Amino acid sequence: MAHPVSPVSPPLKDELDIVIPTIRNLDFLEMWRPFFQPYHLIIVQDGDPTKTIRVPDGFDYELYNRNDVNRILGPKASCISFKDSACRCFGFLVSKKKYIFTIDDDCFVAKDPSGKEINALTQHIQNLLTPSTPHFFNTLYDPYRDGADFVRGYPFSLREGAPTAISHGLWLNIPDYDAPTQLVKPLERNTSPHRYVDAVMTIPKGTLFPMCGMNLGFNRELIGPAMYFGLMGHGQPIGRYDDMWAGWCAKVICDHLGLGVKTGLPYIWHSKASNPFVNLQKEYKGIYWQEEIVPFFQSVVFPEECTTVQNCYIELSKKVKEKLGTIDPYFEKLADAMVTWIEAWEELNPVSQAAAAAAQPNGVKKEEPSVKSK
Amino acid sequence: MAHPVSPVSPPLKDELDIVIPTIRNLDFLEMWRPFFQPYHLIIVQDGDPTKTIRVPDGFDYELYNRNDVNRILGPKASCISFKDSACRCFGFLVSKKKYIFTIDDDCFVAKDPSGKEINALTQHIQNLLTPSTPHFFNTLYDPYRDGADFVRGYPFSLREGAPTAISHGLWLNIPDYDAPTQLVKPLERNTSPHRYVDAVMTIPKGTLFPMCGMNLGFNRELIGPAMYFGLMGHGQPIGRYDDMWAGWCAKVICDHLGLGVKTGLPYIWHSKASNPFVNLQKEYKGIYWQEEIVPFFQSVVFPEECTTVQNCYIELSKKVKEKLGTIDPYFEKLADAMVTWIEAWEELNPVSQAAAAAAQPNGVKKEEPSVKSK
Repeated sequence: MAHPVSPVSPPLKDELDIVIPTIRNLDFLEMWRPFFQPYHLIIVQDGDPTKTIRVPDGFDYELYNRNDVNRILGPKASCISFKDSACRCFGFLVSKKKYIFTIDDDCFVAKDPSGKEINALTQHIQNLLTPSTPHFFNTLYDPYRDGADFVRGYPFSLREGAPTAISHGLWLNIPDYDAPTQLVKPLERNTSPHRYVDAVMTIPKGTLFPMCGMNLGFNRELIGPAMYFGLMGHGQPIGRYDDMWAGWCAKVICDHLGLGVKTGLPYIWHSKASNPFVNLQKEYKGIYWQEEIVPFFQSVVFPEECTTVQNCYIELSKKVKEKLGTIDPYFEKLADAMVTWIEAWEELNPVSQAAAAAAQPNGVKKEEPSVKSK
Repeated sequence: MAHPVSPVSPPLKDELDIVIPTIRNLDFLEMWRPFFQPYHLIIVQDGDPTKTIRVPDGFDYELYNRNDVNRILGPKASCISFKDSACRCFGFLVSKKKYIFTIDDDCFVAKDPSGKEINALTQHIQNLLTPSTPHFFNTLYDPYRDGADFVRGYPFSLREGAPTAISHGLWLNIPDYDAPTQLVKPLERNTSPHRYVDAVMTIPKGTLFPMCGMNLGFNRELIGPAMYFGLMGHGQPIGRYDDMWAGWCAKVICDHLGLGVKTGLPYIWHSKASNPFVNLQKEYKGIYWQEEIVPFFQSVVFPEECTTVQNCYIELSKKVKEKLGTIDPYFEKLADAMVTWIEAWEELNPVSQAAAAAAQPNGVKKEEPSVKSK
């Protein structure tokens, strides 16, 4: 009970991929080199596929551009967003690993209040390898952390916890605000030590949260098929809700399947605020749609026979079409894309789950990426 | 939106009582003098009423011993526990103030990581005077704190928050562990800066938590009648579940009435661990009963016509008798005591709520305490 995991370094080296969506040279990796270099990177190049993305020497990576996405997925490529960081979920799809860490290319290494550089990846791994506590709140935060435990009054039968599916990290410097808040508070910063909160906690069952994709870890075997970042960006009426959408879908499915979602540490250093005027244009439909989307997700109940993430996700797509389709035809298109995503998932991950394997015995072999180097 | 309250000092001086249950001289108040002296204290003397409790000079207080409890409540005094800190709720009953802060006499002033002494009372007041966010999780913690806000994806319609009913503070040094954990980890300490978490957060709607009575603030007008600490100690089969019981009752009622519960800051310095062997004797029934009590509270649904705390509490007492009475006859006695408590509350607080006033137009005037000094 409550023994923290002490992984050898580098932990999960052969079981974790780092997924990075980008439109530019990945110089930001230099700062992460001590922490990321042992791991395999999956880079999803957004936008113009003819542009060459430079990756610093010494990293082990595969890189996919839009041409690769189209070639690998064929007509199913329609479910992968273009000109939006939502394209990162293509990396989740083609990974063969159990764990994913995804990070934005404007995120750097943060320092804790003592001035020590934070190895965000190690903290995510720690979060993912220790259980969650979604069924009862522990007032001293993560009871599985070193030096912590369950407090008086915490039922003993719940102290084994639930498997952790998602580890949601936070941001120092530029907080993840929406466009209206950015406009109203252009100078607000999340700084250490003032705003550094030294805690990891489980988001309770039945509670939705705004999941940000900037600094995010998850167990791909447990929740991968729900980590679809939707239709955003080019040709879509909405942007900057890709991670929110994935978070709402994943959370209701985690709640149904008894999986845990943690938030808190690790912090990364978010270097620059995106343009609030551009963001407002991307977000404004989301800002009023979310007033209906959130109650919709709060009301989602899955039938008992939904016992896999894929089952739940297909069921969710039906509910989205039925209940959110009335807001805007966009949601009907999104619901269809959710189905396409699951078809793509099962095609590329034929043996990832017994259920998927049974449904699709002749899995398609994954194609090689266009670029692969060491 | 999200503007922190900046109260003048001392905040809520005439609207808050500090309730202290004790069996000994209150020398611990010396350390709290800079923070508590402007406020009125209600001291509930537990155990032998012939013993004289010394209160340091200069404090404004009223003190009630068991003889006072019996005289003031008559036959209804049976609902107030004897030889257990659960007797503190008598102080909640006789207070005439809007806010209560209650603290144990082995709790001292803690220091934050910068070495500054923490004014726990001011932080509780700040927590109580700013809204809560029970309906959606904010990943940057309390959005009403200075320098914080709601993150991207937080529905704007929920940003006004809910009125805060309860502020649950934490403990440095000795954590609030149950007897088995105390026995297993006798040396574990919660120390600053290592275990100091600089956060206040709302416990989401639908989530139960273990409420500790050591360092607790609440809005008596909003939730007072639910802050009954049950039948514990002398003559009862259980102890050390008084605050847990109050917390579970209060939380389900807060959830039903749309009120918020916060936890986190402020920390107090908990000076000494109670004896784990004695605690085990007090707790052991609770340790297995809570395995049924918690699912019971998780399943509680109030009818819509329960629109006041008193209504909800009476309804809850019926459910306790019906559903928990099967565990042990103790719960039938407790359910009756819950009703007695509400009768006592309405007798002593005839105009505290319109509903109570309507039900009991000829309120009994509160009697004077036996000791009152400045």
